[in-house]
Amino acid sequence: MKAGVLFSGGKDSTLAALLLSPFVDVELVTVNFGIIPNDAADIARILGLSYKSLDLEAEIATSVVESMVTDGFPNSGINEIHRIALERAAGIYAIVADGTRRDDRAPMLSVSEARSLEDGCGVKYVRPLLGYGRSFIDELVAGYFEVLYGECVSFDYEVELREIMRTIYGEESVFDVFPKHHQQSKVMALKKCQLGN
Amino acid sequence: MKAGVLFSGGKDSTLAALLLSPFVDVELVTVNFGIIPNDAADIARILGLSYKSLDLEAEIATSVVESMVTDGFPNSGINEIHRIALERAAGIYAIVADGTRRDDRAPMLSVSEARSLEDGCGVKYVRPLLGYGRSFIDELVAGYFEVLYGECVSFDYEVELREIMRTIYGEESVFDVFPKHHQQSKVMALKKCQLGN
Repeated sequence: MKAGVLFSGGKDSTLAALLLSPFVDVELVTVNFGIIPNDAADIARILGLSYKSLDLEAEIATSVVESMVTDGFPNSGINEIHRIALERAAGIYAIVADGTRRDDRAPMLSVSEARSLEDGCGVKYVRPLLGYGRSFIDELVAGYFEVLYGECVSFDYEVELREIMRTIYGEESVFDVFPKHHQQSKVMALKKCQLGN
Repeated sequence: MKAGVLFSGGKDSTLAALLLSPFVDVELVTVNFGIIPNDAADIARILGLSYKSLDLEAEIATSVVESMVTDGFPNSGINEIHRIALERAAGIYAIVADGTRRDDRAPMLSVSEARSLEDGCGVKYVRPLLGYGRSFIDELVAGYFEVLYGECVSFDYEVELREIMRTIYGEESVFDVFPKHHQQSKVMALKKCQLGN
């Protein structure tokens, strides 16, 4: 079984890949707009996993950014992009996974949205961290990964969407819509093992 | 890290143990009332995992059975027993896990109940299957386990609670409160590997 794990370079999506890797053939997938270069392929190599990049059309970004500006907050737009990314990955993989956790707010599909994705796309949608609380995740991450923490260090949707919003609507809109700081994590190395089975 | 995985002998709790076993030291735990003998220790041996049995007091069973008869349905009572079982296991293990799945109705803790359990008992509560849909679970189960399917083949709460209700309130109450059939699964052997790390 081959699973495409949506990958931002951060600790959650990497941990999701780690947890699946003994049981299915994991490929990391970055779904983005190609606005900002990233080193996802290099990180995948360090993790010992195969990697694919899927580009979404620029119109999707501009439409989502417009709705975020209208909403005045980012969560609905981030959920929308995440659903599109999952559907796109479902066109390639029989199993699609992500790093969403029990305590996340966005992106986060409801149980009925998860079932709709599975039924609509004929895919198995897997969230290895959905039943995991913060402290257990932190303990696993500390045990397995070397992690860099900082502003915009990885390549989740928000980094590119902020940039697109900045270009179209200006810095003030970014300031209005998004939290001031965008603290992220980025996995730099494995402490214990090589992933993959 | 040692995790106590609540174990009914069925495919879900066994799969939860399998998924955790590469990452933490798993012990299977059966929490029940000691009414009906079970072969949990033998199954644990087949799986290559250590095993512990925790007995709950008979008064808990009679109180829960009474509330089920009052309710006219079993789910609230099964949730109540499950919370008690998790709290009891949390007295022994730093990590407590179970086999509840995305599509389960009972037992099932809400996200806020899961957080309360963690905060109240100082435990990490882990549900490895919570982000897994039925078809992926079925595929993993078919790949890893030999499974027996049938009426009351494993030893979940319902088997003992039905028996206690039958003794106190008679067969008719069992018929009124529970579904007519209690289809279960029981893991008989591993196909691929020995669990444990």
